[in-house]
Amino acid sequence: MPNLNKKRFIVDMQPVGRRIEIESGTNLLEAARSAGVGLVSICGGEGWCANCLIRLVSGQLSRVSLMEEAELDAAALAKGYRLACQAEVLSDVKIEIPPASLSTPQRLQVEGDELKFELEPAVSAFEVACPAPSLDDLRSDSTRLAQAILDAGHAVPEFEMGVLSDLSQRMRKSGWKARLAVRAGLLAAVLPPKSRIYGLAADIGTTKLAVYLLDLESGETVEKMGVMNPQIAYGEDVISRIAYTREHADGRKTLQAALIGSFNEIIARMCAGQGIAAEQIVEGVFVGNTAMHHLFAGLPVEQLGLSPCVPAVSQALDVHAAGVGLKIAPEARIHLLPNIAGYVGADHVAMLLATGLWQRKGIVLGVDIGTNTEISLISNGKIISCSAASGPAFEGAHIRNGMRAAAGAIEKVKIVDGEVHIFTIENERPVGICGSGILDIVAEMRKAGIINEKGAMLASHPLVRAVSGTLPEFILVRAENSGHDKEITLTRKDVNEIQLAKSAIRVGIDILIEQAGVQAEDVEEIIIAGAFGSYINVASAVQIGMFPRLPVERFHQVGNAAGIGARAALLSLSQRKLAGEIAERVRYIELTSHPDFQARFLKGMYL
Amino acid sequence: MPNLNKKRFIVDMQPVGRRIEIESGTNLLEAARSAGVGLVSICGGEGWCANCLIRLVSGQLSRVSLMEEAELDAAALAKGYRLACQAEVLSDVKIEIPPASLSTPQRLQVEGDELKFELEPAVSAFEVACPAPSLDDLRSDSTRLAQAILDAGHAVPEFEMGVLSDLSQRMRKSGWKARLAVRAGLLAAVLPPKSRIYGLAADIGTTKLAVYLLDLESGETVEKMGVMNPQIAYGEDVISRIAYTREHADGRKTLQAALIGSFNEIIARMCAGQGIAAEQIVEGVFVGNTAMHHLFAGLPVEQLGLSPCVPAVSQALDVHAAGVGLKIAPEARIHLLPNIAGYVGADHVAMLLATGLWQRKGIVLGVDIGTNTEISLISNGKIISCSAASGPAFEGAHIRNGMRAAAGAIEKVKIVDGEVHIFTIENERPVGICGSGILDIVAEMRKAGIINEKGAMLASHPLVRAVSGTLPEFILVRAENSGHDKEITLTRKDVNEIQLAKSAIRVGIDILIEQAGVQAEDVEEIIIAGAFGSYINVASAVQIGMFPRLPVERFHQVGNAAGIGARAALLSLSQRKLAGEIAERVRYIELTSHPDFQARFLKGMYL
Repeated sequence: MPNLNKKRFIVDMQPVGRRIEIESGTNLLEAARSAGVGLVSICGGEGWCANCLIRLVSGQLSRVSLMEEAELDAAALAKGYRLACQAEVLSDVKIEIPPASLSTPQRLQVEGDELKFELEPAVSAFEVACPAPSLDDLRSDSTRLAQAILDAGHAVPEFEMGVLSDLSQRMRKSGWKARLAVRAGLLAAVLPPKSRIYGLAADIGTTKLAVYLLDLESGETVEKMGVMNPQIAYGEDVISRIAYTREHADGRKTLQAALIGSFNEIIARMCAGQGIAAEQIVEGVFVGNTAMHHLFAGLPVEQLGLSPCVPAVSQALDVHAAGVGLKIAPEARIHLLPNIAGYVGADHVAMLLATGLWQRKGIVLGVDIGTNTEISLISNGKIISCSAASGPAFEGAHIRNGMRAAAGAIEKVKIVDGEVHIFTIENERPVGICGSGILDIVAEMRKAGIINEKGAMLASHPLVRAVSGTLPEFILVRAENSGHDKEITLTRKDVNEIQLAKSAIRVGIDILIEQAGVQAEDVEEIIIAGAFGSYINVASAVQIGMFPRLPVERFHQVGNAAGIGARAALLSLSQRKLAGEIAERVRYIELTSHPDFQARFLKGMYL
Repeated sequence: MPNLNKKRFIVDMQPVGRRIEIESGTNLLEAARSAGVGLVSICGGEGWCANCLIRLVSGQLSRVSLMEEAELDAAALAKGYRLACQAEVLSDVKIEIPPASLSTPQRLQVEGDELKFELEPAVSAFEVACPAPSLDDLRSDSTRLAQAILDAGHAVPEFEMGVLSDLSQRMRKSGWKARLAVRAGLLAAVLPPKSRIYGLAADIGTTKLAVYLLDLESGETVEKMGVMNPQIAYGEDVISRIAYTREHADGRKTLQAALIGSFNEIIARMCAGQGIAAEQIVEGVFVGNTAMHHLFAGLPVEQLGLSPCVPAVSQALDVHAAGVGLKIAPEARIHLLPNIAGYVGADHVAMLLATGLWQRKGIVLGVDIGTNTEISLISNGKIISCSAASGPAFEGAHIRNGMRAAAGAIEKVKIVDGEVHIFTIENERPVGICGSGILDIVAEMRKAGIINEKGAMLASHPLVRAVSGTLPEFILVRAENSGHDKEITLTRKDVNEIQLAKSAIRVGIDILIEQAGVQAEDVEEIIIAGAFGSYINVASAVQIGMFPRLPVERFHQVGNAAGIGARAALLSLSQRKLAGEIAERVRYIELTSHPDFQARFLKGMYL
């Protein structure tokens, strides 16, 4: 029987994106469990395994326990790290769960179709050997190496400080032999003899980071890793992160440091996994939306939040990896593909490159669904693009029982003869609804007549419950069937969020079609890219009007095309050049400056 | 009456280079006073003016007083800062006295003859204006600026991260107008409209830093400043600093940070003095001996301390100013002139450039006297150079009553009819002997027959005192005549230090003359450069055999020629190019590998 004197608090778990209401004094391990978020806990909550490490972002927890004092050092405690099993909730709290503390990794897309091209990376490597200095040969170490490079039949590249600062020790240690990694006239790394060289490709999503380690000598992707973007702790979407940089003096640096920190962790794990040294990673190609691109490079984002929302930089950039804090080869560069506009970034360029959309002859549409949805229409060799503010509903945010695509998320729904059938990720007991599930539910409810074209719920339906003082809600899973003994419902407000999201996307598509002077039925193919896009039920999306009513076979879901594009640009200078040409060719359409935008948006909300 | 129970301790004051023995419990203000080192003290030692700030490098002082707690913040205390008047000596201590705490500034040479050349700096500036972004003009900020540069009739330079990271705010703040500083295809700074641009030239000496601020648009030197090299706290000479980097994991970084910190202080003071912003300083040309060059740039120096002592880098370098921590324009570069060898650095190249020695037709000798003395012989258009390990005796170190050239230092000595006449800097009461004084004393004592050709003192001379158990010493100033009531003497060991120093220089000169196949009397001119060199009495130097016995009119003292060379290379790309050519033309002679070196060195010690 619940103690009614106890206060109840909200625990907001990031970056997994789960919130749960618990009783005051509940420890965070129990809170996570009841929210269906599995934390590693070998000791069963006694505190000695120190696996359920979390970080307090805001709010109040119980005092640090003796167990925590024994397991965590002062630096970790100062940063807010706690053991979930030891920390009791004393107010509404927001916590960050590091990937290593999660027992079930989240499902993140890092696969995708592969492009075909010649291996032609920007960095290549060769072996050199020099004579050691002596009283008869007093040349400086760099002069000595330069001559050895010439003797090996190569042009002498620039030696920058990152390489020079340990060249002397390195050459003496290796007996004056080395393998050099050279990039367009620049010495990127001096490696031990016979070292293989690697490159990093990454798609920096607002929510997720997809990272690939590639062998630059074979072109093979040797490791893939997906983690949540740690900046989520500072704001779920791009707009709130821009606000964070405006409101905090060092905000831009804080967000950059969080991102770089995650990359360095991934790099360390990948290198350990492959048994290589981080300095063997001699180049990178990273893509992301314009805000993520800017925050990675340390560029200002404030102007992205103010009309007319222009990027600080749109051309391709070569960022000094060590300069932004990435721990790879000392003079490695990270090539950032060009941006198109404030809300159509390098990730969309990479997608256009990866899918080959840019060179298609007919009329083709490319849609990359996210918090911002980038849309391109290719018609008669011309590319026009726009950005639709679709919001975070498809990521499970702003939905009462929404969650990201993790174990236990309802990802598919069917209503057959009035009976609701749900399908969860990893077939676990349901704990919430992820984006594809929400899309399905709305489409199925509409088909079954449980909601009308305005999104209003049929009050007489047995699963629709009137809620006093507010709008009705649909009971999807009863408490006894859920993974956390609480019912899972879809509210009228949730339906409205989906209506807003799908209308934004549809209006974008319609305006592009109109600008190109073609008809919706002329679109020969719609390519849906992005992690979320590859999980959705296209029929449901068409059903609710997110896409034009075209035959299902014209839709193709291609997964993380941006990541494929980044890898292509890493392995091939020709592909990288193409990316630049694509960005140049795009004509950007600003939707909000279209005279009918508002009216179309309202109309687009009908289901 | 002295309390015989009290212990006596040594106080080592850096960078002024004074040591004094005091009683336990003496405060540092008194200790400094008795050593003739004036500290600013407006409150007379009560602790409230906080002017006598010093930093404890090693040893033990009394507890921090209430007065110090009130005047110094926690950060300053943590770094070891104390008020000299409050801190009592409880062990042998080493302290660092910041320039601002010294009541009499040390004499530092920043003047010199001027070279004549066309003004042709590496960085030039021009005004631009762009239209502001709007919904009809959504170009990125960098694209907008690039177009404005083209429209103004200039080539578009590279935009690096230092400039891009605040371009957006800056252009919005200035109404989309700016003055751009561009260096060889690189945008060095985006400045407010009409900003004038400046450059920095510096000579990084082992002991002293000479810094010049130049107006790059007029070529005028607008400010000069000389301070002690703060690295002295970590080792008086190059060898002990190299040892420091070997013995401390972060030693190289510590030494670099100390140096950069001093430069940043000087820059801030110069900018305040001129009423300009530090970002208006858009380039620098720095010179120094090879070790100082390496420590400034963050290059390894360990190999300089191990035979065969080769530089990590000998070619000219453009170092990213922000990368080493210098607070000037975000993408400014510091051009470092080339080094010749491990112990013949860019400062010597600058001296050869400044004096025009490199292009002289006859036979000319250039000598830059310091802890290491660099010597070049120009004969028939060929330049041969060597480095002589002359040691720190001329800086006043390793001499019992030695000190640097500060107020109260005996800088000139005459012995006339057995009577000793001394001359001090600023005519203050004598507190010690600086290098030129020591040279004079030895020469005068030799002339007066008080020491013989081996350096042995005439025991029967009234001013020579036998010291039991050790060698005799010469009484230069009696206690009642000195500035600190203690006598000033020259010991037999001091004489020996001078013999070692002058022999090293003379052997270097002789070997170069021999290698060139000429005779000493053929040398038409001997140019003596460097701060110390411009104060010495040439006749004394010839008297003791430091230089060949040539007519005094063949000697010319040119002051800080290295600083002049650095300024020339800052103002003129042609001069900079010449410096590179000079370094290429020099043939370096390693003295220690000469078969007769040891024998000549012993012979050279005769007076």
